[in-house]
Amino acid sequence: MLDDHDLVIRDGHILAILPAATTSGGIVHDAKGQLMTPGLIDCHTHLVFGGNRAAEWEQRMNGVSYQAISAQGGGINATVAATRQASESDLLQLAILRLQRLLNEGVTTLEIKSGYGLTLENEAKMLRVARQLAAQHPVEISPTLLAAHAAPVEYRHDKEAYISLVCDTLLPQLWQEGLFEAVDIFCESVGFTPQQCERVFASAQRYGIPVKGHVEQLSLLDGAQLVSRYQGLSADHLEYLDERGVQAMRASGTVAVLLPGAYYFLRETQAPPIETLRRYQVPIAVATDYNPGTSPFASLHLAMNMACVQFGLTPEEAWNGVTRHAAQALGRQHSHGQLKAGFVADLALWQVKQPVEIIYEPGRNPLYARIFRGYITHGSVR
Amino acid sequence: MLDDHDLVIRDGHILAILPAATTSGGIVHDAKGQLMTPGLIDCHTHLVFGGNRAAEWEQRMNGVSYQAISAQGGGINATVAATRQASESDLLQLAILRLQRLLNEGVTTLEIKSGYGLTLENEAKMLRVARQLAAQHPVEISPTLLAAHAAPVEYRHDKEAYISLVCDTLLPQLWQEGLFEAVDIFCESVGFTPQQCERVFASAQRYGIPVKGHVEQLSLLDGAQLVSRYQGLSADHLEYLDERGVQAMRASGTVAVLLPGAYYFLRETQAPPIETLRRYQVPIAVATDYNPGTSPFASLHLAMNMACVQFGLTPEEAWNGVTRHAAQALGRQHSHGQLKAGFVADLALWQVKQPVEIIYEPGRNPLYARIFRGYITHGSVR
Ligand SMILES: [Zn+2]
Ligand SMILES: [Zn+2]
Repeated sequence: MLDDHDLVIRDGHILAILPAATTSGGIVHDAKGQLMTPGLIDCHTHLVFGGNRAAEWEQRMNGVSYQAISAQGGGINATVAATRQASESDLLQLAILRLQRLLNEGVTTLEIKSGYGLTLENEAKMLRVARQLAAQHPVEISPTLLAAHAAPVEYRHDKEAYISLVCDTLLPQLWQEGLFEAVDIFCESVGFTPQQCERVFASAQRYGIPVKGHVEQLSLLDGAQLVSRYQGLSADHLEYLDERGVQAMRASGTVAVLLPGAYYFLRETQAPPIETLRRYQVPIAVATDYNPGTSPFASLHLAMNMACVQFGLTPEEAWNGVTRHAAQALGRQHSHGQLKAGFVADLALWQVKQPVEIIYEPGRNPLYARIFRGYITHGSVR
Repeated sequence: MLDDHDLVIRDGHILAILPAATTSGGIVHDAKGQLMTPGLIDCHTHLVFGGNRAAEWEQRMNGVSYQAISAQGGGINATVAATRQASESDLLQLAILRLQRLLNEGVTTLEIKSGYGLTLENEAKMLRVARQLAAQHPVEISPTLLAAHAAPVEYRHDKEAYISLVCDTLLPQLWQEGLFEAVDIFCESVGFTPQQCERVFASAQRYGIPVKGHVEQLSLLDGAQLVSRYQGLSADHLEYLDERGVQAMRASGTVAVLLPGAYYFLRETQAPPIETLRRYQVPIAVATDYNPGTSPFASLHLAMNMACVQFGLTPEEAWNGVTRHAAQALGRQHSHGQLKAGFVADLALWQVKQPVEIIYEPGRNPLYARIFRGYITHGSVR
């Protein structure tokens, strides 16, 4: 924490951080004593999707079983159907409303995954929406291909054939179109086996594309070790992660991305092994996992709170989790997530005395100003 | 759920609800197809207080023990000290910021407890702030005397003497000044014994003042039975409530007020006995318990979500919990919390298709308009 300093911005980047009043020239803004932090980074979201699963959730709360909901076309299949049906501009309109909630909280970079299209055309549509969002808003978006999210209904009896489609068609063609920058998988009994996930990673590796994975959320399948063998950017969820997985992540420099919103919403009881992650000094990030089925919370502040309350992270760890470690999870650790000369001038100003206040009281939102590439963005700021 | 109806308002009250276009005259507002519900009622808050416990919470998350924090003047004593020190106008300014967050969520009535002053003068100051809030904002406030919240430091070795002060001085004098409408207690090993609480209730009964209680939160002390013996309006928290307590509440018509924010924040593991409450048809309300120590969330939407996710309430039960049952917890079941002829015209309009959407996605806040006594209040509405 520095008092009485100036932050000098040139060409959208931080030029220097100097004692107050030692600089001169340029346009001067007075931060009026507010706390400045890096802009927040939400490194794991499924922000683009069609439909709404509120009614299905109500059924579940009313005691209807997963099986019954699934049989009537609910669950992820409902979101896939709604996403396929929606036009690109419909999807964009829905996503803008969700994005604005994150921007209002001081988010300046976020990741968005595909994974509700599950065909070449529909995965491309989702990723184009992510690109449109970035083009129309003062925010940086890291798009991820998550074609291996679930097997679509038309492939439900032949997941291997769907994985072949992903590896041989979706991945190379959408990569050629420049629509994503990393490849993700869902390694779980209800998703894909480690072997199927490895086929996707091997395909990504052929093109030099970074990988990451949804792993060890509901069971231990050694998905974190798999991600680490491919030098993955991040392994996400991790409730069932064991020490060998942590060791592998440590060796490969893979970030542990915690998603406490899903843990909360699914009423899980096994928390990720925070102590082991600390012991091996694995960088820990925190993200919303914003999605309609398991984490319908477009609030990174709430995710930070939940990471502390539910998982026992310290507030400082939660802050690192949405700044420097989240940047690392997106391969941006040399340019994003820190107040440092040479880094992007993506900043947030807060009406608080201490950083913990943003986490302690999630509904409060003390955002005072949000700065993207050196420009104060009022569009989404009070 | 009614489609295509008009709601007719006269003199701040609902005159009638009629099929659309069968009414004429007056000023007509088009709700444009938005969902209308009663304004929300938050029936348990500690909204007025000085200071901030964020730094203390950070210490706790960093591993500092309760004992060590308490020894350095932390915990409730810190809030009491800050509240005593604050001027009435300071307290008012702080409380306004918190109140606005609730109004922004469609709250039209809320309860506010004293309990951080713990002297005649300071309890009066808190209750005057609650009165000021109501005078300055389009909201109804139900003020509660919670002098038996904790023994102040000057009485820590003689709780009985403090209870005598409450019964003989605070309660009668502040009642005479018309500063509250119900009396509350904190029945717990860290608060007061059932015997001490009963002394307060007996004193309230002498003046015909309704009572309520914080009971069975951390242990079973039969506080719910005590509240019921005095025909209490509500018994609140209830994590450790047993069947005899439920039976007593059923017999006395006492509302069960659930406070899932505190359960979440304290990482409690024993949930209130929802099934037993349902079996005995005890009305269930849901409230924020907004306070700096154990539930720093000024969001009733989040409390509704937490009541469903953590306690297994259905979304319909959560809605009843912040409307008709919350009204009953404040003794207003014949005038508040329902869309019904003769009831106050305190309403909320929501940009959603189904009521569950407000609960499912707490950060979204789809409030479209808020109406207090028939007037659209834009001050705190988007
Ligand atoms: Zn995810
Ligand atoms: Zn309380």
